[in-house]
Amino acid sequence: MPPPILPPPPPLCVQVTLFEQEHFQGKCMEFTSECCNIYDCGMDNIRSIRVESGAWVGYEHHDFQGQQFILERGEYPNWEAYTGSLSNHIERFMSLRPIYCASHQSSRMMIFERENFMGRNTELCDDYPSLQAMGWFRPEVGSMHVQCGAFVCYEYPGYRGQQYIMECERHSGDYQHWRNWGSHCQTPKIQSIRRIRH
Amino acid sequence: MPPPILPPPPPLCVQVTLFEQEHFQGKCMEFTSECCNIYDCGMDNIRSIRVESGAWVGYEHHDFQGQQFILERGEYPNWEAYTGSLSNHIERFMSLRPIYCASHQSSRMMIFERENFMGRNTELCDDYPSLQAMGWFRPEVGSMHVQCGAFVCYEYPGYRGQQYIMECERHSGDYQHWRNWGSHCQTPKIQSIRRIRH
Repeated sequence: MPPPILPPPPPLCVQVTLFEQEHFQGKCMEFTSECCNIYDCGMDNIRSIRVESGAWVGYEHHDFQGQQFILERGEYPNWEAYTGSLSNHIERFMSLRPIYCASHQSSRMMIFERENFMGRNTELCDDYPSLQAMGWFRPEVGSMHVQCGAFVCYEYPGYRGQQYIMECERHSGDYQHWRNWGSHCQTPKIQSIRRIRH
Repeated sequence: MPPPILPPPPPLCVQVTLFEQEHFQGKCMEFTSECCNIYDCGMDNIRSIRVESGAWVGYEHHDFQGQQFILERGEYPNWEAYTGSLSNHIERFMSLRPIYCASHQSSRMMIFERENFMGRNTELCDDYPSLQAMGWFRPEVGSMHVQCGAFVCYEYPGYRGQQYIMECERHSGDYQHWRNWGSHCQTPKIQSIRRIRH
């Protein structure tokens, strides 16, 4: 594994700024921890986002429900910049939380052919823009277990379509069935997976 | 770098199947080399794609012009599955070609702060879902030089937004200015970069 360009900052402090208008305009608010309902924080629509540090997950609905989207450090000047790769239309962005992930060098998970950790399986510890190109035999995954760190799984190859954030810190890292992958999940299709890094 | 799940097939044979209807229905056609105009091949609209092997790039217009999108092994059952992360609306898919990329372990490129390979610079040889998280100091890149292999660069973090395919086999790997990144490029914004693998 080659070294990063510069040592990444320690993941002790996480910060995101949300804006009510595109291109970082209008009313804004900084967050350094989870927010279960942006309306309750006095924000209305979110139209641009600047992630200052850490990795975050945004949710369509309050209380961390609905479609998910990963937010990593950088600038998202409009709605499409952070929801663009979701296959279903998303109308709102209502809650968000930081993701506590291991150093990505130690991230590890198992994927299984069938639900409840049954059938053929393999261990993942890298980024996989196409699971099939790396040897997985079909476009679905039956169940998953995250041993260390956090991953984002995608419906289509090349990190596109529905996103599912999978963490060893949640559900003991166990995702027995696609119905556990998120309240929005409607299919076992998973075709690309990558580690989440700070 | 951990080994892939199974050894990937050698990139000698590349194959993609295009379908005129969603979910791999309707008239279909297999390609094992580039196609500069799908109308001339007797295809009308493309609504689903199955990439059997290799990495490909699709283009909005004929003769490899317009917005680009990477196609890696796997299934794209509908239009949004392969165009979903583009920030601008795309109406057609008119040409495609295979990407000849090195073993991803040897992929290397340089990014520069300013055009014509000037200013601060750094070498990339990994996947970077957030360039800023890895130490790059701003959401733009001035110019790029691909020394080995091929990369896909994205407008936003997390592999979202406009895509630009950068190859050492094309333009001698030199991309002096954002106007060379593709006929659709309108901004120097680049916030995530990853290697293209077979």
